[in-house]
This record gives sequence, C-alpha cells and structure tokens, in this order.
Amino acid sequence: MAKLIIDAMGGDNGSRAVVEAIISYLNKKPDTLFTVVGKKEELEDLKDKVTIIDARDVVPMEAGALEVMRMKESSMYKAIALYKEGGYDGVASCGSTGAFLSLATIILKNIPGIKRSALVAPFPTKIKNKYVIVLDAGASNENSPEEMVQFAIMGRYYYQAVYDKAEPSVYLLSNGVEEHKGSPNGQQAYKLLKEKKLPWFKGNIEARYVCNGDADVVVTDGYTGNIFVKSSEGMAKLVGGMTKSIFKKNLFSRLGYLFVRNGVKEMAEMMDYRSTGGALFLGINGNVMKIHGNADSYCFESGIKCLDKLVQGRVTDKIKEALKNE
Amino acid sequence: MAKLIIDAMGGDNGSRAVVEAIISYLNKKPDTLFTVVGKKEELEDLKDKVTIIDARDVVPMEAGALEVMRMKESSMYKAIALYKEGGYDGVASCGSTGAFLSLATIILKNIPGIKRSALVAPFPTKIKNKYVIVLDAGASNENSPEEMVQFAIMGRYYYQAVYDKAEPSVYLLSNGVEEHKGSPNGQQAYKLLKEKKLPWFKGNIEARYVCNGDADVVVTDGYTGNIFVKSSEGMAKLVGGMTKSIFKKNLFSRLGYLFVRNGVKEMAEMMDYRSTGGALFLGINGNVMKIHGNADSYCFESGIKCLDKLVQGRVTDKIKEALKNE
Repeated sequence: MAKLIIDAMGGDNGSRAVVEAIISYLNKKPDTLFTVVGKKEELEDLKDKVTIIDARDVVPMEAGALEVMRMKESSMYKAIALYKEGGYDGVASCGSTGAFLSLATIILKNIPGIKRSALVAPFPTKIKNKYVIVLDAGASNENSPEEMVQFAIMGRYYYQAVYDKAEPSVYLLSNGVEEHKGSPNGQQAYKLLKEKKLPWFKGNIEARYVCNGDADVVVTDGYTGNIFVKSSEGMAKLVGGMTKSIFKKNLFSRLGYLFVRNGVKEMAEMMDYRSTGGALFLGINGNVMKIHGNADSYCFESGIKCLDKLVQGRVTDKIKEALKNE
Repeated sequence: MAKLIIDAMGGDNGSRAVVEAIISYLNKKPDTLFTVVGKKEELEDLKDKVTIIDARDVVPMEAGALEVMRMKESSMYKAIALYKEGGYDGVASCGSTGAFLSLATIILKNIPGIKRSALVAPFPTKIKNKYVIVLDAGASNENSPEEMVQFAIMGRYYYQAVYDKAEPSVYLLSNGVEEHKGSPNGQQAYKLLKEKKLPWFKGNIEARYVCNGDADVVVTDGYTGNIFVKSSEGMAKLVGGMTKSIFKKNLFSRLGYLFVRNGVKEMAEMMDYRSTGGALFLGINGNVMKIHGNADSYCFESGIKCLDKLVQGRVTDKIKEALKNE
C-alpha cells in the first residue's frame, strides 16, 4: 500500500484529468492512500476518497527556480513541502518540468553523493513488450563524465525495478561503437565506466540501434538526451501520420484498414508515450514523478502506476545503498 | 553537361552497383561525361561509355587520415587527385566517409574562409515532397559557434540549389525555442546569427519539430547532428518494421494490404534514404559527394543525380561569392 501525494494543478488539461485518473486508479488499487493538493472546489469528486489539501496558486509553465520557491501557496510547492515532512512514499505532478525539478532539488535535495538528477525516458523496441530507457532525457543541459557514470548506476536500478529484469545491459549513447568515439565528456565517461570493470557496462551504442532490443539502459548527457528523445518522437509522429493518411485515402483503403485494425491498435499502444505516464527524477532524495504536461486521465493514471511501481521496487533506497558501496 | 569522376570501389555492394548506376544514368542523361576509377577488370561493361582509370588498391573502411594519404594507388586517392588537377565538375565515392573527408580536406582544401566542412542529411517532412536538410550530420565531432554560423550560410545555398526554393528558412537545432536554450556553443551561434540580422534566420527549433515542414535548413554541431540523424533513422525503421509486420500477420491482413498498396509504396519512397543517394561535403573547395556506403545501384544513381544538380546549381561557387561579401 503506497501513500502518494498528487499535485492536481498545472497540467494542460486541468485538474479534471487528474481527478479522473485518481478515481480510476482507486477502482483498481483501492488500498492506495492519496493526498491531493489543488483548488479544493475542483477536487469535489474526490472528497470521500482522498485527503484534499487546498492550494490557491498554480505554478505557471515558464516559472523560474527563484519564482517557484517564492510561491509557497502553490499546489506544487505545498505538495513537495508535504512530502519533505515525511510519512509519504512519493509525489507526482504534471506541472512545469523546470519548476518541479527546481523545487524537488532545493527542498528534497539529491541522494547523498549524487551530483545531478536525471529524467528517464522509456522507448519501445523491435522486441514486443520490451522497452529501453534513455537518461538523462533533458533534466540538465550539460553533464560531466562523473554524472554520466552515476546515471548508468541509477538507470540500472530503475530498469530492474520497473521492468523486472535482473541483469539489464547498460550502454553509452555515441556516434560510433569504438571507445574513442563520442562527445568529449562521453569519451571520458566511457573510460571511467571501463575502469570500474562493471560487467553490465556494454560500451557505446549508436543512436540508430537504441531501439533494436539489445540495450536496456542508454546513458547520455541531458542536452543530447533531449535531442534523441525529441527527434525519435518527431519521426514516430511523422511516420504514424503518414500511415494514418494512407488508410484514410479512399474507400478501398478504409476497407483495408478493417483487415489490420487490431495490429494497428496494438502498435499504437506500444508507441503511445501516454502509456508510461512520465518519468522519475532519478537521483532526487525521494520518489518524485514528473507526469507529461499534456497528460489526459489515461496518461496521468499510467504515471501514478509507474510511481507506485518505483515505490514498491524501492529504487531510490537501492540507489542509496549502492552508493555506499561505491 | 557535367564531367564527373566516380570512385567505383569501397562500397558494401562492390563495384557492380556502381557500374549499373552509371549505365542507368547515361541512359537518362547521355551527355554526362564520366571518368571512373577502380579495378579495370571490374569495369569492363563501362569501357565503351566512359573513361576508365585503373587503380589497384581499395581504401579499407577503417582507414585513418594518415593511412589513406599514403595509399596513392587507391581508387579514392586517384579520384580526388585527378579532380584536383582540374577540368572536372565533381567527384563521388561510396567508400569510407572518414577517409574520403580526410583526402578531400587535405588535397582539395576547404573553400577559403570556411573553417570546417559539413555533411548534409535530407529528411522527409509532413508536407508531401518537401524535404528539410540537417547539417552538420556528422563530419565533425565538435563545432565552434563560428563554424555553425558558416553551416547556416552554406546550408541555405545548398537548399536553394537542390530544392529550388528562393528563400529557405534556417533554424538552429536546440532543446527549446527560447534564445537561452541550447548547448553552450549553440547559444553562442544563436547570438552571432542574431547579430548579423539575417532575415532568413528564424531562431531555435526543437528536434521534435524538424520534420514538421516549417524548416528548410536546420543547423547543429556534428556530434548532435549524428545523434539526430541516427535516432530518426532508427525510429523510422522501428515504426516501418512494425507496420510491415502488421500486414504480414495473417491472411486477412495480407488482404488488407492489397487495398493500401499504393499508399504504402508512396510512403516507402518518401522515407527511402536511398532516394537521396548521399550528401555533399559542404565547404570543401569543390563538389565532393559522399554516397551511402551500402548503396545499391538505385541509391548510387540518386547520388550521381544529386551531385549533378549541385554542379548545375553552382552551390560551391555561390558559397565562395557569398563569403566575399561577409
């Protein structure tokens, strides 16, 4: 049974999507204890099911770190401050990524020893129901080699917990498989990982092969990670759109669709970023889940499910323990 | 009428693909004058159609700059040395990218004033038959802000010549649209481009929107460009593979395919990287075309066509003229 704090505000689809997600999740896992922070008049439908904490302010999308630290009456600030007080297992928000990350870093701090936290992005692969995670997917703009080494260690625990695989393989994203390839910092990270003689570090992987199914965890700096994630999303959308327009072309193509409907739906599900909900800020001293800003209720619920899984898998605790042995 | 030098060796599919490509191109444009360099016994079928220059050595894929400069009997070295002598309009090879770039840079040199050359990668967009080009797609591993500014200017001329558009729009690849976003060098490049008050520089573009159809030219450093190109390729392949398997699933889905066959073929053509053949080393003092290493005859022929177009469009000359006015 998990005790989760949810910031209900700041998403593109308003608090309604969040309310529906929580109701739906409670239908499936009725023993989950939710504390929901937001404008109480918008949370009426939850009043018999969860603890509601009223907050009158909403953090705007473009809020900077300083601004958000001053917004002590905002739902986001209150949610994180409450989590800091203790007694809860995790906190989630679909508000501004930058503001949420700033608040979490300032109030909760990083896990002792962790230099920077990272955003984790999951991708489908050629192999059915197998995912690969990429981190940092854009929490930072630059990362040192030492930070990337920590991403490798943290990513491995994340994968074990969320995808139930005992020995995930970890790669560095690069522009070639050879050791001397990669950005200057990437090359340095390769050296550090090699020196540690970690059996699960498998070397460099080219961007082209990330979704091939061989890699479980792919590590990169935040700027490159953002480019990887966004270009993959863009291309998936382009090809998906082209496929759609093929079926919509004329009466015959619409007829053709009927024959492959199930397959198309299955593929759409596999490609649907909503099914993973969002990503943990891996490295923060706590379980802090960023849910997609444009989350609908299905997406938000997926995010809650993922957070619950990370809580059950004790990912943050495991990372802490691992760092003690480093 | 163009006079083109072709290195027939070093491709994954051997000289046969090159021979077939040249024969096919001559059928369409019989006034093209080819000089083909390679093992003469493999070029027998061309002997009445082109000038053949025998070369006994083939540059291996992994050859470094020093090694390739010593291989004076290789087809690649001979092709570039011949082009340097003058009287020709362009040279193409599907051999090792690194070796070809080294040879071209050392023997032909960059256009006076150009600090680094760039590889250009074309991508399809949401808009039918409209392409966007990304540079540098991986010729360098790092690029200075000044180099990226030159990529912007060169990319614009390339787009004008190849895609017949008078006023192409130029963007910088970034992790956000705001001016302060981007890698440290990217931010600096933004400043320099803004200072120049170029009406065609439109600011930052996120990786997700590159193929949306708004941008014509997208500029980035070589490392990030490689990640962008390869992750897009990987995702296109993943989604394409999934789509294929949907149609192959059972008898019904195979039947369904018959109804959308034309649409699928059209999309496959648009997505087919072979249809662009390869990319110019933009910035080299000459027209030097790198054709895909795994080119089949169709792909190689597309590369010849592109080189011919760049020759007719006088891209290199235009860049030289533009730099005089900088």
